[in-house]
Amino acid sequence: MSLSRKTSFEDVAAELVPKPSLQRMPWYLAYVGRLRLQGVANVTSTQLSRELNVDASQIAKDLSYLNVRGKTRIGYDVASLDNALADFLGFRRGHAAVIFGVGSLGGALLSDRGLEHYGLNIVAGFDIDAAKINPEAPVPVYDVSEHIRQISRLKAEIAILTVPHAVVQEVADMAVAAGIRALWNFTPHKLLVPRNVVVQDTPLYSDLALIYNQLIARK
Amino acid sequence: MSLSRKTSFEDVAAELVPKPSLQRMPWYLAYVGRLRLQGVANVTSTQLSRELNVDASQIAKDLSYLNVRGKTRIGYDVASLDNALADFLGFRRGHAAVIFGVGSLGGALLSDRGLEHYGLNIVAGFDIDAAKINPEAPVPVYDVSEHIRQISRLKAEIAILTVPHAVVQEVADMAVAAGIRALWNFTPHKLLVPRNVVVQDTPLYSDLALIYNQLIARK
Repeated sequence: MSLSRKTSFEDVAAELVPKPSLQRMPWYLAYVGRLRLQGVANVTSTQLSRELNVDASQIAKDLSYLNVRGKTRIGYDVASLDNALADFLGFRRGHAAVIFGVGSLGGALLSDRGLEHYGLNIVAGFDIDAAKINPEAPVPVYDVSEHIRQISRLKAEIAILTVPHAVVQEVADMAVAAGIRALWNFTPHKLLVPRNVVVQDTPLYSDLALIYNQLIARK
Repeated sequence: MSLSRKTSFEDVAAELVPKPSLQRMPWYLAYVGRLRLQGVANVTSTQLSRELNVDASQIAKDLSYLNVRGKTRIGYDVASLDNALADFLGFRRGHAAVIFGVGSLGGALLSDRGLEHYGLNIVAGFDIDAAKINPEAPVPVYDVSEHIRQISRLKAEIAILTVPHAVVQEVADMAVAAGIRALWNFTPHKLLVPRNVVVQDTPLYSDLALIYNQLIARK
């Protein structure tokens, strides 16, 4: 039986996994990956619960979306669980992505090979600043006027938006018109997009406000 | 009357603002800031609602945490609302922060002056890699062995964690022992910390899983 086949992402397409479950899974994956490197063979949900401070019944429910079964007292096979989580989260398939805005954050994401381990292949960047254009770089950076041709050529589905927030809606519209199906938005601007386009906000500034608020509350 | 004084962050310390409200406020701030730059004098909650695709009653409720009042038919004064939001979110006060792990993401955050506009003053970085140590840089990078002395000297309250996830718990423990009160965690590791320490997870990899999941679901 091919475990990774049965637990692959596509097989659960019909069923959208609850967001909180999906958000916890990378925690499980990080921990289980470390156990695997340490040569640990099995892990129980009680152990996961204790290490990750998540309710054991919640863990069992989250893992029920995967096609892995734990055994009484022995728990889950670490290698199978590691594979199943990485496959399920889509981290083992390459997803072609482009970056709009090769500034400080965009430039870092462009050169961060770490994201490849999570299935994100950044294949090109776009900018309006001539000093940043470099079609010969390992990950080429093009003038934004080339975005339609390059997105089509590179079959990119995901656009990372690290432009100034004042222009991000305009850039999102351009990206969607060029065939992009998912926008990873790092700006504090609330994007308006067609219903079939995925938007994921990663609002660094909101996270800062949450930190400040809690620091004050705990003083 | 000093509006910014009455709506400052400290005054609401007793009352922890609901997380979803806090997370929406940077959207309002980004939009209102643009209106202000355009010279627009007033904005109604209906207009905010239409532009940001948030229910108007929800907007009114969120803004009720601020001490600003809209006028019937005229709406909110744009400049006052802009000031009140920025003050309330803590973006106008400097918060001293250090970065553990000056790799690709950590290095980008270190040199990203953009975060200063949101009240985050990154005052130092720490790494174990001798090639990254540079105490003479605009934002100095020290060997991690110096963290206790530097955190105390710089009066840093926030630590940004961009180290590999396998070591992040150890680094978090070190930072807390050195007096850090809030941890901004960019790794997929679930941190265990004393109850009085703030943890904000910014799980880039979870966000990727959410994107992949929704892309599949909409195919």
